[in-house]
Amino acid sequence: MQVGMIGLGRMGADIVRRLTQHGHQCVVHDVRPAAIAALEAEGAVGADSLATMVSKLSAPRTVWLMVPAATVEETLAQITPLLSPGDILIDGGNSHFRDGIRRGAELGQKQIHFVDVGTSGGIAGLKRGYCLMIGGEKDVVTHLTPIFRALAPGGNDGPEAVKAAGQHASDDRAAAEYGYLHCGQHGAGHFVKMVHNGIEYGMMAAIAEGLNILKQADIGKHAQEVGAEITPLRNPEYYQYDFALPEIAEVWRHGSVIDSWLLDRIAGALRGDPALSQFAGHVSDSGEGRWTLEAAIDEAVPAPVLSAALFSRFSSRGQDGFANQVLSAMRHAFGGHHETVAKASVPSSKSDS
Amino acid sequence: MQVGMIGLGRMGADIVRRLTQHGHQCVVHDVRPAAIAALEAEGAVGADSLATMVSKLSAPRTVWLMVPAATVEETLAQITPLLSPGDILIDGGNSHFRDGIRRGAELGQKQIHFVDVGTSGGIAGLKRGYCLMIGGEKDVVTHLTPIFRALAPGGNDGPEAVKAAGQHASDDRAAAEYGYLHCGQHGAGHFVKMVHNGIEYGMMAAIAEGLNILKQADIGKHAQEVGAEITPLRNPEYYQYDFALPEIAEVWRHGSVIDSWLLDRIAGALRGDPALSQFAGHVSDSGEGRWTLEAAIDEAVPAPVLSAALFSRFSSRGQDGFANQVLSAMRHAFGGHHETVAKASVPSSKSDS
Amino acid sequence: MQVGMIGLGRMGADIVRRLTQHGHQCVVHDVRPAAIAALEAEGAVGADSLATMVSKLSAPRTVWLMVPAATVEETLAQITPLLSPGDILIDGGNSHFRDGIRRGAELGQKQIHFVDVGTSGGIAGLKRGYCLMIGGEKDVVTHLTPIFRALAPGGNDGPEAVKAAGQHASDDRAAAEYGYLHCGQHGAGHFVKMVHNGIEYGMMAAIAEGLNILKQADIGKHAQEVGAEITPLRNPEYYQYDFALPEIAEVWRHGSVIDSWLLDRIAGALRGDPALSQFAGHVSDSGEGRWTLEAAIDEAVPAPVLSAALFSRFSSRGQDGFANQVLSAMRHAFGGHHETVAKASVPSSKSDS
Amino acid sequence: MQVGMIGLGRMGADIVRRLTQHGHQCVVHDVRPAAIAALEAEGAVGADSLATMVSKLSAPRTVWLMVPAATVEETLAQITPLLSPGDILIDGGNSHFRDGIRRGAELGQKQIHFVDVGTSGGIAGLKRGYCLMIGGEKDVVTHLTPIFRALAPGGNDGPEAVKAAGQHASDDRAAAEYGYLHCGQHGAGHFVKMVHNGIEYGMMAAIAEGLNILKQADIGKHAQEVGAEITPLRNPEYYQYDFALPEIAEVWRHGSVIDSWLLDRIAGALRGDPALSQFAGHVSDSGEGRWTLEAAIDEAVPAPVLSAALFSRFSSRGQDGFANQVLSAMRHAFGGHHETVAKASVPSSKSDS
Repeated sequence: MQVGMIGLGRMGADIVRRLTQHGHQCVVHDVRPAAIAALEAEGAVGADSLATMVSKLSAPRTVWLMVPAATVEETLAQITPLLSPGDILIDGGNSHFRDGIRRGAELGQKQIHFVDVGTSGGIAGLKRGYCLMIGGEKDVVTHLTPIFRALAPGGNDGPEAVKAAGQHASDDRAAAEYGYLHCGQHGAGHFVKMVHNGIEYGMMAAIAEGLNILKQADIGKHAQEVGAEITPLRNPEYYQYDFALPEIAEVWRHGSVIDSWLLDRIAGALRGDPALSQFAGHVSDSGEGRWTLEAAIDEAVPAPVLSAALFSRFSSRGQDGFANQVLSAMRHAFGGHHETVAKASVPSSKSDS
Repeated sequence: MQVGMIGLGRMGADIVRRLTQHGHQCVVHDVRPAAIAALEAEGAVGADSLATMVSKLSAPRTVWLMVPAATVEETLAQITPLLSPGDILIDGGNSHFRDGIRRGAELGQKQIHFVDVGTSGGIAGLKRGYCLMIGGEKDVVTHLTPIFRALAPGGNDGPEAVKAAGQHASDDRAAAEYGYLHCGQHGAGHFVKMVHNGIEYGMMAAIAEGLNILKQADIGKHAQEVGAEITPLRNPEYYQYDFALPEIAEVWRHGSVIDSWLLDRIAGALRGDPALSQFAGHVSDSGEGRWTLEAAIDEAVPAPVLSAALFSRFSSRGQDGFANQVLSAMRHAFGGHHETVAKASVPSSKSDS
Repeated sequence: MQVGMIGLGRMGADIVRRLTQHGHQCVVHDVRPAAIAALEAEGAVGADSLATMVSKLSAPRTVWLMVPAATVEETLAQITPLLSPGDILIDGGNSHFRDGIRRGAELGQKQIHFVDVGTSGGIAGLKRGYCLMIGGEKDVVTHLTPIFRALAPGGNDGPEAVKAAGQHASDDRAAAEYGYLHCGQHGAGHFVKMVHNGIEYGMMAAIAEGLNILKQADIGKHAQEVGAEITPLRNPEYYQYDFALPEIAEVWRHGSVIDSWLLDRIAGALRGDPALSQFAGHVSDSGEGRWTLEAAIDEAVPAPVLSAALFSRFSSRGQDGFANQVLSAMRHAFGGHHETVAKASVPSSKSDS
Repeated sequence: MQVGMIGLGRMGADIVRRLTQHGHQCVVHDVRPAAIAALEAEGAVGADSLATMVSKLSAPRTVWLMVPAATVEETLAQITPLLSPGDILIDGGNSHFRDGIRRGAELGQKQIHFVDVGTSGGIAGLKRGYCLMIGGEKDVVTHLTPIFRALAPGGNDGPEAVKAAGQHASDDRAAAEYGYLHCGQHGAGHFVKMVHNGIEYGMMAAIAEGLNILKQADIGKHAQEVGAEITPLRNPEYYQYDFALPEIAEVWRHGSVIDSWLLDRIAGALRGDPALSQFAGHVSDSGEGRWTLEAAIDEAVPAPVLSAALFSRFSSRGQDGFANQVLSAMRHAFGGHHETVAKASVPSSKSDS
């Protein structure tokens, strides 16, 4: 098939590469000419403007947007007038599912088909394939099947796997085993991707908290502060361990219950840098974690783990600062307590920054 | 009555003052001679050693320990051999209730009565009186009633209140209305005080989080970072408020549901220093919050609020540093994301330190 | 002053009563004629329709809406066409602050002044007075001062307190000490009320968790289940306490750090019903707790305690059911574990329902 | 090698099977004769008493305990007198690491070597191999290498993998890649296993919460309760999705960031039973999750995600019942609110029980 790709950042460029490798023709555009040139060298067709891109695509056209969430609206405003009824617009970025619902309706009035594709896989996706969570009209999604098969991991597995998957009663089931899925109407793809990222935050935080507990398991070796307001560690003899985190993360990858792709990542990172000293610990969040919580709240679904994971990221960026000042002020007011600046047993990103 | 007081810090000294004001005779000791002298000037009898203290008390003696949790064990080892069967030892500090159970049993073998008294009230207690949560043998606690009445807030209210309280069917009920209570056997006083402090942490954190949300309600006025990994604030028009925190804390003190003694404290602190700039936000914890959680875990009682409050204090001291580095390392490993050091919208204690 | 009141439920009726007691004239309307009649008997002027109400008020009129959040929009649509430029509309209910911003702008185009008043105090407010958090135009709020003074607790204190409060440099400061405050532009009143309720949820949960820990402190007396998957209680000797919760809640009210109006409530409830057996424990939430979290998320402010409190309420209503089924299914899948229906040591509201 | 196995439950029996398959001789004992007979039929040597077992093992003996945590102490008391200096005792169950430290010291005084082996893998371990986290004396652990290689997953991979792994500079690194690791002194194995399980709880809860959010994404289709105390869903149009959870769990297994062994488990369970109707949702916890939190508290390491996961399990068993009653009682006391028994949008295990 023929696909126009707008946005050739890390994700957009790799998707083009993978599509090209699977025999699809990509017409590519980016605000940076060098990004276009790089993919031209790998077989894509460059387009120095959106109008040029549209002119190089045969109707009905498929145009994939892979731009930052903050610029999707503007890019849609530019590309839409250039398209014709029957064309398909894919938003593959990290958009809010509510925008997907709205955009699907707005574009539908112009007879342009909107498809929202939540895309997971990161920088590994070029080789591994991407997990694609898709929302939109059923027949439009079916029409795009060749593209999704090329991008999803199962597409690498060759005819045997295809055949085996094909024997399932349900097309959705087969698709899911490839690694792509039509999840429902407009916005469904980004809804499922949103929850995926919410889970991701929770799993990452679980691993991070656990490794931190192992890291500080030598606390019994260190002298403790003593004071009227500080309780001594009751059993220092239990915390005398110097754990080798790279090996522990590695052993968990083999046969344990927490074996996971995320654990693979941190095992790799720890192997090269056991103290993770190149990271200060200011952890960003990209939107989906927040929206997952908002959905949970709207639905009255308890999400204590997902929220704790999100809030830890906020705190890692110092956003709990004033709340902590309030606590210290109250302690001073009722107990006359002055702040004790404890020397953390591990170098803290916060006190270093 | 006659009371020996060991430990003349903030709490010990004020307890002596309040007992003295209510006509009790206090024999006082501290490792700092100046602390003894100060209370002698206010009517207490000084003792330059534990042996001297014991010699100045008539049997059966009542000795109150008000020393840091870390030194209770050592002080007990020194005083116990000087006491006689029938004497009473009170631990009024922040000891673990498990130690109270053990100490009660150990001292009981020597026919010395042990009483654990959880003491709440802080620096306000001298005037306001203390809330006393008491564990030990019933008749011993009854014997000490005059002391507890002098220290508890209700003791200020004079005969009318005494009479009114006395009309209750239950002595415990009357005592509770004074502000002291025999909670149960050895350790019961410190158990109840422990849970009190656990609740205190949760209430403080609730107030602190709420004020932080008000503080940052002007975020829509500030330029936001934009990037592939950062979601823009969807509705900056909703966050244009410059709230006057001192007045808000004050208004809540009058007729609201969250009217509380802790709110009084923060309202006072904010009045003098609206930005709380004298506090860096390194929040200590003194033991009871931790033990409360351990009890919850042992009992299989969910305590998500109390634990979140405790963990926020740990994080305020940078103890989440390595966990955050793990998160950044994972994000880099799967997404190629580099850390973005966001400029916090309020001065953060962490990035300042 | 003259005030029209629409909505004579618990809160609306008591506000009318308090205004009437302070010499203000109230014209009252409700969809239930009996509610109108009841207040007529207490001195209010009844109005059987909104048009009648408007006709009985002199311009510039002040109309106060005290209706459920779900019906504010509809009521506004009915009353607005009846009003004239210069009239004032007050929304005293539990509306979202975002609606306040919108309504302020919409009504402003018709030269009708909108004022949002977050009202705290509950059924105690009639006697105690209400804490009023107010948003809107400064001069309009100033114009309404006599009403707010009548409703706020400080209004009970008479001329001495008025005079003392008046000596403060800032009008806002004096107002806050009365118990009402102009918090800022449209929506500010409901924003501050929203955060107030968020804090309320957190404080309530802290108390509830603490009391639950005390309640189950006798767990060591009960036989424990034993099995490959269940860890035995390591130290049953530490959990042998039968705490008298009514007395403990009472003693905390006298001199403790957690002394609070909420603690007063639960102490009263426990006194009459120590097991709280009339309550099943299905805890509602009314919106503000949710919106507080959404604001925290928008602002990137960590709110782990406020979120834990909200999510506990969701769980109390069984909203965690499917998540728990997922956990059991995973445990069965990887460990072959079958569910053990533990006999809870306290009667559970959930298993009773 | 020759290994004595005490305890032939699910885990013990499968470990015997895997050892036998790899050419080791197992002498097996259980209190249930049928369990012994079953393994005799598969090549193991049965022993109808501990004394018989010991007599059938050549010194220095290796005896592996695979019994419930609650019976380890008793079993150790029975087997120890039968052993000789130089023998090795392995505790492979879910013991507390503190017991491992103590037992290592106690047995060491008798010149019996104690090794604690945290064993992860569940019922899949027979085929997949087990992840083994090991504590004890270095040379003793080295001596047991053939056993650990047989049990760990890497042992299946044949000489190529062995050779490749062997080329690593560190023996620990090679071992970790097999799936076993000497983590440190006595207790280290159970400490690392404890944290593993803590992480497991967190990851499970993240998945469970996410699936629950997807499950209830149709809430906008259902009529909402309306009342003074209940906020209406502001945007029902956003929650109209009927997500197919089995397919979504499946698609996430292919190329996503949350691809994990736990996700494989729930995808399998959902495939056969999309509503998970065979599970009531009473989720047990086996000790390690609790101990992980206790370690975090002792170390002052924040663990908000791990604690939220644990507390959700407590709540699933109704342990939050009294706390919820307290909340309802407070709401009634201050607002006159009566409980509204909301009809949950999904069948709740709690209200069904």
